[in-house]
Amino acid sequence: MVDTLIKVDLSESPYTNEKIHNRWHPDIPMACWVEPGDDFRVETYDWTGGQIKNDNDAADVRDVDLKQVHFLSGPIGVKGAQPGDLLEVEILDIGTFDNSLWGFNGFFSKQNGGGFLTEHFPEAQKSIWDFHGMFTSSRHVPGVKYAGLIHPGLIGCLPDHKMLDMWNTREKALVSTDPDRIPELAALPDGGPSAHMGSLKGDARDKAAANGARTVPPREHGGNCDIKDLSRGAKVYFPVYIDGAGLSMGDLHFSQGDGEITFCGAIEMAGWLHIKVSLLKDGMQKYGVKNPIFKPSPIVPKYDDYLIFEGISVDEQGTQHYLDVHIAYRQACLNAIEYLKKFGYTGAQAYAILGTAPVQGHISGVVDIPNACATLWLPTDIFEFDIMPGADGPTKYLDGKIDVPLAPDL
Amino acid sequence: MVDTLIKVDLSESPYTNEKIHNRWHPDIPMACWVEPGDDFRVETYDWTGGQIKNDNDAADVRDVDLKQVHFLSGPIGVKGAQPGDLLEVEILDIGTFDNSLWGFNGFFSKQNGGGFLTEHFPEAQKSIWDFHGMFTSSRHVPGVKYAGLIHPGLIGCLPDHKMLDMWNTREKALVSTDPDRIPELAALPDGGPSAHMGSLKGDARDKAAANGARTVPPREHGGNCDIKDLSRGAKVYFPVYIDGAGLSMGDLHFSQGDGEITFCGAIEMAGWLHIKVSLLKDGMQKYGVKNPIFKPSPIVPKYDDYLIFEGISVDEQGTQHYLDVHIAYRQACLNAIEYLKKFGYTGAQAYAILGTAPVQGHISGVVDIPNACATLWLPTDIFEFDIMPGADGPTKYLDGKIDVPLAPDL
Amino acid sequence: MVDTLIKVDLSESPYTNEKIHNRWHPDIPMACWVEPGDDFRVETYDWTGGQIKNDNDAADVRDVDLKQVHFLSGPIGVKGAQPGDLLEVEILDIGTFDNSLWGFNGFFSKQNGGGFLTEHFPEAQKSIWDFHGMFTSSRHVPGVKYAGLIHPGLIGCLPDHKMLDMWNTREKALVSTDPDRIPELAALPDGGPSAHMGSLKGDARDKAAANGARTVPPREHGGNCDIKDLSRGAKVYFPVYIDGAGLSMGDLHFSQGDGEITFCGAIEMAGWLHIKVSLLKDGMQKYGVKNPIFKPSPIVPKYDDYLIFEGISVDEQGTQHYLDVHIAYRQACLNAIEYLKKFGYTGAQAYAILGTAPVQGHISGVVDIPNACATLWLPTDIFEFDIMPGADGPTKYLDGKIDVPLAPDL
Amino acid sequence: MVDTLIKVDLSESPYTNEKIHNRWHPDIPMACWVEPGDDFRVETYDWTGGQIKNDNDAADVRDVDLKQVHFLSGPIGVKGAQPGDLLEVEILDIGTFDNSLWGFNGFFSKQNGGGFLTEHFPEAQKSIWDFHGMFTSSRHVPGVKYAGLIHPGLIGCLPDHKMLDMWNTREKALVSTDPDRIPELAALPDGGPSAHMGSLKGDARDKAAANGARTVPPREHGGNCDIKDLSRGAKVYFPVYIDGAGLSMGDLHFSQGDGEITFCGAIEMAGWLHIKVSLLKDGMQKYGVKNPIFKPSPIVPKYDDYLIFEGISVDEQGTQHYLDVHIAYRQACLNAIEYLKKFGYTGAQAYAILGTAPVQGHISGVVDIPNACATLWLPTDIFEFDIMPGADGPTKYLDGKIDVPLAPDL
Repeated sequence: MVDTLIKVDLSESPYTNEKIHNRWHPDIPMACWVEPGDDFRVETYDWTGGQIKNDNDAADVRDVDLKQVHFLSGPIGVKGAQPGDLLEVEILDIGTFDNSLWGFNGFFSKQNGGGFLTEHFPEAQKSIWDFHGMFTSSRHVPGVKYAGLIHPGLIGCLPDHKMLDMWNTREKALVSTDPDRIPELAALPDGGPSAHMGSLKGDARDKAAANGARTVPPREHGGNCDIKDLSRGAKVYFPVYIDGAGLSMGDLHFSQGDGEITFCGAIEMAGWLHIKVSLLKDGMQKYGVKNPIFKPSPIVPKYDDYLIFEGISVDEQGTQHYLDVHIAYRQACLNAIEYLKKFGYTGAQAYAILGTAPVQGHISGVVDIPNACATLWLPTDIFEFDIMPGADGPTKYLDGKIDVPLAPDL
Repeated sequence: MVDTLIKVDLSESPYTNEKIHNRWHPDIPMACWVEPGDDFRVETYDWTGGQIKNDNDAADVRDVDLKQVHFLSGPIGVKGAQPGDLLEVEILDIGTFDNSLWGFNGFFSKQNGGGFLTEHFPEAQKSIWDFHGMFTSSRHVPGVKYAGLIHPGLIGCLPDHKMLDMWNTREKALVSTDPDRIPELAALPDGGPSAHMGSLKGDARDKAAANGARTVPPREHGGNCDIKDLSRGAKVYFPVYIDGAGLSMGDLHFSQGDGEITFCGAIEMAGWLHIKVSLLKDGMQKYGVKNPIFKPSPIVPKYDDYLIFEGISVDEQGTQHYLDVHIAYRQACLNAIEYLKKFGYTGAQAYAILGTAPVQGHISGVVDIPNACATLWLPTDIFEFDIMPGADGPTKYLDGKIDVPLAPDL
Repeated sequence: MVDTLIKVDLSESPYTNEKIHNRWHPDIPMACWVEPGDDFRVETYDWTGGQIKNDNDAADVRDVDLKQVHFLSGPIGVKGAQPGDLLEVEILDIGTFDNSLWGFNGFFSKQNGGGFLTEHFPEAQKSIWDFHGMFTSSRHVPGVKYAGLIHPGLIGCLPDHKMLDMWNTREKALVSTDPDRIPELAALPDGGPSAHMGSLKGDARDKAAANGARTVPPREHGGNCDIKDLSRGAKVYFPVYIDGAGLSMGDLHFSQGDGEITFCGAIEMAGWLHIKVSLLKDGMQKYGVKNPIFKPSPIVPKYDDYLIFEGISVDEQGTQHYLDVHIAYRQACLNAIEYLKKFGYTGAQAYAILGTAPVQGHISGVVDIPNACATLWLPTDIFEFDIMPGADGPTKYLDGKIDVPLAPDL
Repeated sequence: MVDTLIKVDLSESPYTNEKIHNRWHPDIPMACWVEPGDDFRVETYDWTGGQIKNDNDAADVRDVDLKQVHFLSGPIGVKGAQPGDLLEVEILDIGTFDNSLWGFNGFFSKQNGGGFLTEHFPEAQKSIWDFHGMFTSSRHVPGVKYAGLIHPGLIGCLPDHKMLDMWNTREKALVSTDPDRIPELAALPDGGPSAHMGSLKGDARDKAAANGARTVPPREHGGNCDIKDLSRGAKVYFPVYIDGAGLSMGDLHFSQGDGEITFCGAIEMAGWLHIKVSLLKDGMQKYGVKNPIFKPSPIVPKYDDYLIFEGISVDEQGTQHYLDVHIAYRQACLNAIEYLKKFGYTGAQAYAILGTAPVQGHISGVVDIPNACATLWLPTDIFEFDIMPGADGPTKYLDGKIDVPLAPDL
């Protein structure tokens, strides 16, 4: 029997649960304490805390309150952990709840969150993915089925005050370069009612909430890295900044492609993690570690037959950019979407596949001025039909009658 | 017996060989013609045409004439190929020359070419890699040895005039934004004596050379993609723009990491390719293909145990950038270099390993504003010692007596 | 929510559960019925029905009642299934019970069951393996830890009367060649109280029990194949002999090596399967299928660095046998055991590792008279230390203080 | 430039080459000497020394003189090697000759050699396989193409007199149990003109030839193991029995399935090896090594999507055998052949595929009395069409007009 240290009740608001928080701040009290060497379970909400429903209407995606995200379980105190240590986290397993065997993927409206291809898909759409044991498929995206590479999109330790200040300072500086931009350039602290500071109450809560860092970006501590390979079975080494470390986690994904390009997001789910923690004393200095490092899992889905798409840093308007991998990867994604449309997928379905399936995104060339080259690796075994090119041309397997529900901007 | 359609003599200048060229232009005459379904061999110079020597002095890297690069073998005409077709190229094999069993890797001086980490390694350095059958090791970088993932860094078909004009126009526009920058923002056409237009002579040669596109960047036709996975055994589908296609190739690499971050370059070598060509008539429209697509090889080195480093788009000075994968990958690379230094490598050796070994660079997160997240996957089995983290801290296996030769700027 | 069609209570005897049986017979009533396309869960006892305990005493292994094995869950009727069909079984997942996170491995006494190396390990021994999420390790076998390749050792459909008669006839013929041999040459029907015929009662039960086939050997229908790769995620095609098919399963293994050489057995456990069933009408004839065929899972542990041991069909006494793969594999196993002893393992520990870890056993040569050649592939990444050969010789990592408990014959 | 220590001229008889031999005997003089740490090339004949031609007539297979086989290149003396050492052989590369880009596979007549399925295919048949760079295909077996897993079928060190005597003694004992059997139970020494004792001449040659062990079976020293995974890139540790070790090799295979079930054989070819030798002094005792051990290559073809066939130890006549893996594997092979026939292959073509493609043969169960269970893993990606089972039944892709040439017994 393994102890579950943090439990969640999906029928209740995460704001009622004191072992949940949605901001990074060193003053958030530990939700529980463990010893180095302990293993235990932690339950988590989905990243939105239940805002998105298992139905065929994308209005909830359109109207999502992004100030609430991400609901994290923690922080977990590790006895003896000190600043400068590395916290080794072995992810022994991750699972779903028997009463919640589904997840969602969506594209946010450009007016409320946006995404990687928001210029091409400016309105909210949503697909629901059902879990069949290790596998998933969607009633909104026919013809694909794959085993999950389950992972937490977000995991890391609390920052200390110095690091928190650095984060806030540099992100404010970026926002100030274009403060009216939609979507915004960065999500700055917001101390309003959306901030959930765990068990912190009263003035202390308000003070911390006022400058608690938002959870959206990955940072030095890891955080919202959305690395699909940080999956169950992986061993991760996190920098420790405060006494007790304060490990928090959430934003579980049943499956995701490199880049999490749909932003909302991977296949998002509630669920649980079984982890084991250990300490490497003074590991940051010993190994010269600034950001987390990790060893991937020995047990991941084998989707290793690929069709690979290239993209270069010339944008959709034909403008040349200088070694811009972001644009190059966008072109590779757009190329893949155009290709999949030839087999009968709608653009939104193809986009959803790239966001949810275990596609790889490689930085293939970053020195051949002025073009970066990025490649998108599409696993062919996830399709129920043959998508390889041939002399006869593509077969249109799908008739387009099924699509990903869209909720127009109001 | 397989026919060798293009031969090179490494003891002679590539300028004496009419089946070689170093610019992209539709007027370059075909070096030879083949039928769809044919397989044949093509020999190539190294990308610099022999400028870099097998010695312990990096002066040749510092003084390299980059206007000469890349020396390509071709163009090869494919009978029946027409604009809009896809040219299927199956890379049946790639090999070394028995009298040239070595390759080079280097960092260009920031004054002459630069590279991904040119701010950190601003002066020219060079390492020599010996080939032992399928394996390579370097007298300048002890402790690593790996099987080669041999591939052409550069391969593609000739552009038509319209595409060529588009390339030149957009690249000139970029350069004009900062024309005095060093290194330059893009390599524009240069019709001087460095231009090798194959068998084109006289005025026709001069005219073509004057606007022949440089070979440095990858573009719509593929070209200098430096994709390590486009290796022997891969099947590639290239867009065709002119009658006969005009396939050229060169810049062979014995091994390379994602990004080819050292720029000079991978493990660069002369050698030969054995390829087979076929046509997918009207394939560009049928499959919606703009850039090449490919199926990777069934036979690649299995270095699948990794230690993974994360990087985010905050630069070395702490400045926050918006979803910049280029900066994020640079941070991941710098993190890996710092880590390897703890085991005794010099920074230059670590940099050389990242540029030459089959490291993977993944675009891990591109939507979590404002930080992109990139990961560098370092294969641990290429090292002769254990580089995994542990409670005891790293062992310094190397004493630093051996390093990568450096040639200071003059 | 997935329905659990067959439940087990580990605190109660399997004989009290009418949805369990331990003989193969067409008259055993279906425990439940499903439709093609249904997915559902099935719980199972461990193969011995709880005879082996989580302690440090091998007496229970020595005294095991093998007439009771294997306790299977089923038979499950599939509506519309007819003789000649193929029943497609997709194993969507397999899991452990939260209150039973351990398994056992052992060697039977030569007097009661024996095993592959029973001449070398003639007395009963037992090791207990704890489950840590996806991983397992044993307090009796230090220095190894691995992810589980969970699978049912036994699964298949009920025979019809004709097939049952054929089984009994040919096995009786074999036993009659040496009827007094210990261990016996085959386990013949035994209609005594050990036989559990599901919900069959009275005379019908007695009649069926009298000639119900024992579950020990694999046969045409699959059955006790002990194929480690028939794991969660696999898709299996079973011959159907009777109306409704009658699918039964059990004998779950957390992990096992090719051959299941320890016989008692793999890492044996109670647990549950989540499966989906479909029909390929008349599939046996259409595909020429006599024994089950299957597609392995896309998600299996990646232990792909191996040290490989060879064995030939010359036995321990130096006697030459003719192309005998069984002897050749035994020699390869003995060679691996001798090797592991050099690192400090006892013979019993090494034997337990070969029986439980995902080792591969290959039939490498079967035509080079008179020697068959078999190879045992030992995954090196399951060890916490380096077991590769080197010029300095092996390091003795273990001091021999810990061993696998032994229960001497009485 | 790598030195080629042993050269062969395919247009000349191997009997004219003193660096070739076809018997194992300690008195065969070293063909050359090397130092530990040296790397060098060795050329080899095909195993029959050129008896089989690149044509469409199987008469040469029917009439092959098996007393001549196998022609080995060597022995190579390694300075300082002593009995009890382990000779580490790193196979740096293996290649084909440009003027011999083909290989053969065949089934011997039951009257002259036989094979694994000789009762089912009693007459001589032959297929020719062309090499296209890394790939092979056959004009006699349409619809398959695969990358080669090139390896020496035969490699090992010379025995000392004691070991040689042991071999001869035990093999004679076996033959004496059924001396008139066809095919014979073992190939005993034959000192006639077929014996090639390298540079040994006169009486010494005759004496050695009289008891020189035939090369057919694998033995303690390795020898004719026909292990497909002992391929280029592998590192093998051979027992040393005499001063200088005396390493010999030959019987190159472009590709082979586990078991080399067709006996004549894999895809047999002439070619060259590039190897490096080192010594582990006293390694046999240090590591408890009796037979060779090896680490497989990091670079092998990735054919990892399988359809798996089971077989049990009940023979074609329905007779029950006791844990006989040889019979179980034969049944798995026969099951796979029946399956492939449903797609249009002839039995002989299917048999040829199983013998030449990188199929795996696993010893899946060896303790479940009385049936052994073996599995044959057929890689599905080697086929140009889909061979997976489905509800619609198989498609007959081939019309049977092409077959493997057969030469009836005379």
